[in-house]
Amino acid sequence: MSTVGNSTNIFWHECPVGKVDRQKLLNQQGCVVWITGLSGSGKSTLACSLGRTLHSRGKLSYVLDGDNLRHGLNKNLGFSPEDRTENIRRVGEVAKLFADAGLICIASLISPYCKDRDACRALLPENFFEARLCYVFLNMPLELCEERDPKGLYKLARAGKIKGFTGIDDPYEPPSNCEIEITQKDGICPTPNEMAGQVVSYLEDKGYLEAQ
Amino acid sequence: MSTVGNSTNIFWHECPVGKVDRQKLLNQQGCVVWITGLSGSGKSTLACSLGRTLHSRGKLSYVLDGDNLRHGLNKNLGFSPEDRTENIRRVGEVAKLFADAGLICIASLISPYCKDRDACRALLPENFFEARLCYVFLNMPLELCEERDPKGLYKLARAGKIKGFTGIDDPYEPPSNCEIEITQKDGICPTPNEMAGQVVSYLEDKGYLEAQ
Repeated sequence: MSTVGNSTNIFWHECPVGKVDRQKLLNQQGCVVWITGLSGSGKSTLACSLGRTLHSRGKLSYVLDGDNLRHGLNKNLGFSPEDRTENIRRVGEVAKLFADAGLICIASLISPYCKDRDACRALLPENFFEARLCYVFLNMPLELCEERDPKGLYKLARAGKIKGFTGIDDPYEPPSNCEIEITQKDGICPTPNEMAGQVVSYLEDKGYLEAQ
Repeated sequence: MSTVGNSTNIFWHECPVGKVDRQKLLNQQGCVVWITGLSGSGKSTLACSLGRTLHSRGKLSYVLDGDNLRHGLNKNLGFSPEDRTENIRRVGEVAKLFADAGLICIASLISPYCKDRDACRALLPENFFEARLCYVFLNMPLELCEERDPKGLYKLARAGKIKGFTGIDDPYEPPSNCEIEITQKDGICPTPNEMAGQVVSYLEDKGYLEAQ
């Protein structure tokens, strides 16, 4: 029995079917691929491409999209720093559940602040010396993202119609400890398939694409 | 683009690998089995037994345990009526994600209020005329639950050391529209296996144990 946060008298229930059993069923290891980067950097595109590639190999993944979650789990949150932190905390906790369920969970969120990303990393403990959380930093130049502006949000932010927009009047703190960084090469962006391939290679190297 | 709750400028991203693909991979249909009942009515026991039975048939399920979630996702919530409502709302939203991922999600929470359960039902839309949410009401007499008192909480509640304890000084509103009701027969409780069997038969009848 324990006191946890605002709750008291909370027990922990362990079930006989555990993560290892689920991983055997799925022939993969649960983990989290967390894609971070500016709006317009290609996070959703990579998430979808990665999901498709994994599915073609018979692997079960699920995308937690920051925007989509704001329609549901996080619909009572806004964009204040506190709400951004709580938004990312909840996604981190849900991603952890999905990884525990045995899935390759693909989280796709701007997640601009170091401290919030560090908090998510702390949620997912190491597994045989390998972090079960893989940060993918889509490191695309602001100018490119703003030129793409797929949702027209940079235009609104520049016109002052959106406040606190990441990259314009709210900071994006680049990760210093990400597992994968994706950048332009000679001014050319990798294709969605190339980006997904880079992540799948990492997952394969780490052994996540088969059961323990 | 939409304004949702406290969020504005939120898009919806659709991925090419969808629920139907995941269901084919798993040969099952995502759904939610939501177990409701008093503390000590046997919710966790049924959840574990059901998970074991499903796993033995090669089906992927995952238990969302109300107590366990209060260590993580819901650790910033207490037991006030508002916090109970938010607790159940979040579990409902997460259960929906798991069902969308193709899993048989087993939620195990007291979930005492009709309005909160109704809100969760509304979250999970009908699927070919069948609700994707199955409420299992563990309808055990308060006296039995209190006699079992596996966590010693009834004793604390009777001594006034826990306030707002369901069944003692906070109401449990029995569901009028649950899919499955489990009761004693001639004063004898069904075994965990019998209870799980009853739920599995329901899932089988509804076709959830194979892909569409």
